[in-house]
Amino acid sequence: MCNTVAVTRARWTTETTPLPPHALAWLSRRVGLGEPLPEVPVEAPAPALSADAFTALEAVCAVSVEPSDRLGRAGGLSYLDLLRHRGHGSLAVPDAVVLPASPAEVVEVLQVCVEHDIAVVPFGGGTSVVGGVEALRGSKSAVVALDLAGLEALVSLDPVSRVAVLQAGLTGPEAERLLGEHGFTLGHVPQSFERATIGGFAATRSAGQASSGYGRFEDLVESVRVATPVGEWVVGAAPASAAGPDLKQLVLGSEGLFGVITEVSVRVRPKPYGSRYEGFVVDGWEAGVELVRTLAQDGALADVTRLSDVDETEVALALAGPRADVVRKYLRLRGVRQPCLVILGWECRSRSATMSSLSGKKVVRLGRAMGASWLHGRFNGPRQRDALLDAGVCVETLETATRWSGVSQMRDAVRAALVAELGSPVVMCHISHAYETGASLYFTVLVPRDLADPVGQWERAKVAASGAISRLGTITHHHAVGRDHLPWLEGEIGTIGVDVLRAVKARLDPTGILNPGKLV
Amino acid sequence: MCNTVAVTRARWTTETTPLPPHALAWLSRRVGLGEPLPEVPVEAPAPALSADAFTALEAVCAVSVEPSDRLGRAGGLSYLDLLRHRGHGSLAVPDAVVLPASPAEVVEVLQVCVEHDIAVVPFGGGTSVVGGVEALRGSKSAVVALDLAGLEALVSLDPVSRVAVLQAGLTGPEAERLLGEHGFTLGHVPQSFERATIGGFAATRSAGQASSGYGRFEDLVESVRVATPVGEWVVGAAPASAAGPDLKQLVLGSEGLFGVITEVSVRVRPKPYGSRYEGFVVDGWEAGVELVRTLAQDGALADVTRLSDVDETEVALALAGPRADVVRKYLRLRGVRQPCLVILGWECRSRSATMSSLSGKKVVRLGRAMGASWLHGRFNGPRQRDALLDAGVCVETLETATRWSGVSQMRDAVRAALVAELGSPVVMCHISHAYETGASLYFTVLVPRDLADPVGQWERAKVAASGAISRLGTITHHHAVGRDHLPWLEGEIGTIGVDVLRAVKARLDPTGILNPGKLV
Repeated sequence: MCNTVAVTRARWTTETTPLPPHALAWLSRRVGLGEPLPEVPVEAPAPALSADAFTALEAVCAVSVEPSDRLGRAGGLSYLDLLRHRGHGSLAVPDAVVLPASPAEVVEVLQVCVEHDIAVVPFGGGTSVVGGVEALRGSKSAVVALDLAGLEALVSLDPVSRVAVLQAGLTGPEAERLLGEHGFTLGHVPQSFERATIGGFAATRSAGQASSGYGRFEDLVESVRVATPVGEWVVGAAPASAAGPDLKQLVLGSEGLFGVITEVSVRVRPKPYGSRYEGFVVDGWEAGVELVRTLAQDGALADVTRLSDVDETEVALALAGPRADVVRKYLRLRGVRQPCLVILGWECRSRSATMSSLSGKKVVRLGRAMGASWLHGRFNGPRQRDALLDAGVCVETLETATRWSGVSQMRDAVRAALVAELGSPVVMCHISHAYETGASLYFTVLVPRDLADPVGQWERAKVAASGAISRLGTITHHHAVGRDHLPWLEGEIGTIGVDVLRAVKARLDPTGILNPGKLV
Repeated sequence: MCNTVAVTRARWTTETTPLPPHALAWLSRRVGLGEPLPEVPVEAPAPALSADAFTALEAVCAVSVEPSDRLGRAGGLSYLDLLRHRGHGSLAVPDAVVLPASPAEVVEVLQVCVEHDIAVVPFGGGTSVVGGVEALRGSKSAVVALDLAGLEALVSLDPVSRVAVLQAGLTGPEAERLLGEHGFTLGHVPQSFERATIGGFAATRSAGQASSGYGRFEDLVESVRVATPVGEWVVGAAPASAAGPDLKQLVLGSEGLFGVITEVSVRVRPKPYGSRYEGFVVDGWEAGVELVRTLAQDGALADVTRLSDVDETEVALALAGPRADVVRKYLRLRGVRQPCLVILGWECRSRSATMSSLSGKKVVRLGRAMGASWLHGRFNGPRQRDALLDAGVCVETLETATRWSGVSQMRDAVRAALVAELGSPVVMCHISHAYETGASLYFTVLVPRDLADPVGQWERAKVAASGAISRLGTITHHHAVGRDHLPWLEGEIGTIGVDVLRAVKARLDPTGILNPGKLV
């Protein structure tokens, strides 16, 4: 055994995408560029793990205390995480990275950590934007990042029942490749798809871009295998059951507080023969909301159904380059005053059902090029954040969901809160997930970074926006709670709800080693 | 205040339907008739409620200690319940019936019961077939039935978001009438529809006959208002959320152990313009399973999709009277050797999607008369049980769900277990709820009653069948756990699962007054 292991997936290896010139020009004109933030070198402190604990962990699986490995698991990908990695704000660095290679080894790691009173932060793709993987130690003397990269198998596949068992450390693309060899797909494609993992999807109730077609991740899960400090728990199995409360729903969204998800049994579908994406434009936000609501309530949603508000549409056109002028002119000719872009994509659902529900509605078709353009760029957001930081721009996202009757009030309230706090930010909004009873709202905020207090600038904006969000809907539709949404959870689930979570936690993790400082 | 209240919904008022002559003839030939069970008069014991407790309850709401009211809430509608009400087996009779008229009064009743250490059995329609409303007192000195009939309002309706708030005591028809006035339907029609209540649907994870179209009851619920001994809890709200585990899923299926559901916020749909039901026949069970699986995995299920095995089809034809001979002849002409009836009904889903998925399959259409006949008789099962008892027949049902790859193995195993225990029963089986990954299996058992030991006869058969069921699937797909399925729950959810339920129970009901002896 040695203390430097082959760490197969380091945090900072993802390529970042530079901003094209026309995007920089738009930013300069519309948002305003700032000075690049001075980078303060960040170093990993000496690991606080005792020699005994290290030896005990090493007897189970690979362990690393290398600074680069530990820094690579220090937090996720929120704006504040990015600032911390540039030396602004306090970065929590795990004392070691452990890399179990099987569900049984995960159980053993937890036993060692209970014995040595070490905090454990389960770590998948490290894509949390809510502080969900911050290496907080709580009351413990040390904290380890439990990297699940070694759990990367397709364990089994039942092609008749269309159920696959996937290990928790598989990333989106890895899972799709393994399923694809058998002609199946999971169809779960959130923006974090390229790096996020099966275990992370389950632990955070992830929603993919095509969730209108394939379902949210929790809808895809048949059962979960969880390593807890009190032993292993397999929960769920039958296609549907009335055998008491659905306890797998207690594990889904538990963010590593009750145990470490090691395997997930999921519903899979045959790979679609082809896909089709199209762009449309409606005149005004309200007309767009009405349109998406009709599709949702008619059961006629496309697999991907997105509505951008006027501001986001303007940005989409601006970033589309020279072609945008042609589109703008065409829309003017068609009498569209407040263009709102609608992207519809069909992977497995019927396009004809959508189109027949659209018939008679005032919708301008932009065709497949606009759809292809969205598809091409759909993972770019996270990749461009470093480039935006370099350009002196504060960029972050917020999201929620609420009933149809409250969608526009929510959008107005969040915008107002952000404007009140940030001066004149660019606030873009879209609906990306629609349900019969309501929809998600996703906000992207761009504002020149406050050089003197970049951390405080966003923290204050987040508090203001979250106040509006929690008053009118859920504090999070698909980003999870983590550390950042914790102050608003009690308002949403009640004191009793928090107490119930604590009661479950006390039973499954009696010494409180698992992911301290998150969720509750 | 007085101690005899207007008890608006007594247990034994439902009309029972007599068996028509041709049904009796078939029973006599195929099952064998027995002697009517001698009825032993059943009396309610003197109520064990203290005068202080009675006074305290009466200060909150109406209370009755009348024997007829108490006997009317003594258990549900299982075969064993029916035997108990005829004097065979031990009938648990509540010491009083309390009738709160609002969610606040329910909270107050619970506080009084905590103070006086009285067990509380929430009582809706009293249609449990698993002992879910047995008036067990556990370690308490008295037990009251908390009848929710007074909570009967449509509290609110958001027609844009299509969400209604219904009180827990509304029966299926009452809820439909109130929603129907606004053009909406819940679409939840289990066999217990006529008497079962909204609160009961939620507390037991009920599945309606049209759940392929409208969804299982838990899929319809947006939020739940629960009165617990530690206060009121409203859980759920947003159309979708990642704010931690979905805690409403912990209340759904909790069978009154964590609290009393007082209001449920549900998804509603526009009332369909019309419905259409048709009968089809396939040749053999395996072909039928394949057909229903294809419909489920193609997303082409009818709202009601049912497949009967050969034995159930034979009974359906026998009970259809003289018309059956014509059908049998037609099926022989078409070369069908092992007719299995398929009933498809469309309320809100597209018939054309189903029919196009059926195209090319070997299916004989019987037309709308057979569909109408099923629709006409779909609530008859529970109504005819008293008549069957009078004819000396033991009749009971069992149900489960499992993956498609295990459906036929499950059917064979349950039949074999019943035959081994009961000699030569008639065992009928159908699939009534299909999912992408599997289906429910519903068994109806008919056998001449053992006059010497009618209770033991069924208890032994239940144990034998449940052993097979729990080995191959869930112990219950939609009947819930209650008292009768309790021995098999730990095998399904694990020791950890049971401990988690106990931890939640200890937090919400620290003195253990709620529904003792059920679920865990």
